[in-house]
Amino acid sequence: MTKETSGPKLFRAVADLREFLLPWRREGKRIGFVPTMGALHEGHLSLVRASKAETDCTVVSIYVNPTQFGPTEDFARYPRNLERDMELLTREGVEAVFAPDDAEMYPPGYNTWVEVKGVSEPLEGECRPGHFRGVATVVLKLFNIVQPDVTYFGAKDYQQSLVVRQLIRDLNLPIELKVLPTVREPDGLAMSSRNSYLSPDARSRATVLWKSLQKAQELVAQGRRDPQVIQEAMRQIILSVPGTSIDYVALVNPETLTPVSSITGPTLAAVAVRLEGTRLIDNLLLQP
Amino acid sequence: MTKETSGPKLFRAVADLREFLLPWRREGKRIGFVPTMGALHEGHLSLVRASKAETDCTVVSIYVNPTQFGPTEDFARYPRNLERDMELLTREGVEAVFAPDDAEMYPPGYNTWVEVKGVSEPLEGECRPGHFRGVATVVLKLFNIVQPDVTYFGAKDYQQSLVVRQLIRDLNLPIELKVLPTVREPDGLAMSSRNSYLSPDARSRATVLWKSLQKAQELVAQGRRDPQVIQEAMRQIILSVPGTSIDYVALVNPETLTPVSSITGPTLAAVAVRLEGTRLIDNLLLQP
Repeated sequence: MTKETSGPKLFRAVADLREFLLPWRREGKRIGFVPTMGALHEGHLSLVRASKAETDCTVVSIYVNPTQFGPTEDFARYPRNLERDMELLTREGVEAVFAPDDAEMYPPGYNTWVEVKGVSEPLEGECRPGHFRGVATVVLKLFNIVQPDVTYFGAKDYQQSLVVRQLIRDLNLPIELKVLPTVREPDGLAMSSRNSYLSPDARSRATVLWKSLQKAQELVAQGRRDPQVIQEAMRQIILSVPGTSIDYVALVNPETLTPVSSITGPTLAAVAVRLEGTRLIDNLLLQP
Repeated sequence: MTKETSGPKLFRAVADLREFLLPWRREGKRIGFVPTMGALHEGHLSLVRASKAETDCTVVSIYVNPTQFGPTEDFARYPRNLERDMELLTREGVEAVFAPDDAEMYPPGYNTWVEVKGVSEPLEGECRPGHFRGVATVVLKLFNIVQPDVTYFGAKDYQQSLVVRQLIRDLNLPIELKVLPTVREPDGLAMSSRNSYLSPDARSRATVLWKSLQKAQELVAQGRRDPQVIQEAMRQIILSVPGTSIDYVALVNPETLTPVSSITGPTLAAVAVRLEGTRLIDNLLLQP
């Protein structure tokens, strides 16, 4: 096997990737798929490793999807480093990388959109109108291109994983979804490609998201059941750090993302915080 | 082969149909798919025969999809006759029929919708808001359930075929679309399950749609190039028949469905007419 040294095959065109995957599929091999926007970190690589361990052929897509960014968001400055990403994926023994350009994904006259309602509406859906429409549309396109048996998503984008779960279920896609735990830096900051936006000083303050989530877990462990009290404690922690503003601090049902009135079962604590122009999100499943 | 005598396998559940199709797919057989709302006529059967001739395994779905009917439309009274449909499909040697109930297609919590913009917006899109959203969503679901190599649609629902073509293209579905000619009664009336709504008297008057389309072709053959003149002649023919009202009479670009200012190339003539409470559509590609 020369796989590790030669690296993954890099595909720019849908037709070429399909041709590559056809013999794998014909031989009944299982295809694993990890969709990413590149700028890969250990969070992505944990998904890649799971796919490598559980399937016969791992496909990673690297595509900064313009349709999931709002007009004032960070599409233009989102980090792109295909060469480094290919090096990382070579080490993991990935079989194929799909890195299309925008004209391949959204050719002239493109006009079809997928909307997952319900779970897409609160939290990120309120802060980023149109975001999940872009996510659902591009994920469905990528699923149709790769036709994987299994796909891997990270729990850091928890709401996204619920949107994809609903998409798969509602549209009868024959795909198994695996959601893997958030990978964190030693100080607790959730790995994110957007962490690279942070100045060294902001980087050290960014641990406040994780601290607020730990505080919530601590209060629940102490028997606190009132979401208002817990959210207020979280907000105080976040706002005590200079340069922060809060998009949301929420305690919600982990299936529906609707607010809970009391912590009686597993509850998702979710936060979105702006820190010196960078928007960070994190979440933790609280177990009373 | 006992196929013709035993008839198609009838499936109510997605999982059972998938299980049936798996060995066909594994053996590399080509699967043809004809989606219908049942009440089958010669138009449907022409699609079935094409699939039988061109593929190894023909799947026909029979499902009166509630999400493509408006609240004041004919969902409740749409003709349903599964027993007769099964007899017709037995004669054609169809391998499988998929006839789910609403709970199988739209289980509680269902929340995902597909919108094809552009070609879905004029004509039927204006008269039947939400219709093509329902069509695109159910067709995508059925495609994902059956995963056909080829799918067959009728040209009588010309705009629908454009919506499906755009859906397949935009969402990267690996499916070939074949659109087959409208099948007509001896007097020219386009076959439609809705023709059964017509009283004998209204049935004889219903030929006015086809007559208006023939008039358009005749005027174009005579060298008329002004769409206003041709549309006016069509309207006069239709309105000369008692009990008719016009939803639209349109001469449009056959790719984009936008109005043409002059007949310089192939042009679609499309009509939607109400006749004593029954809404009928028809179309003809005019060749100058």
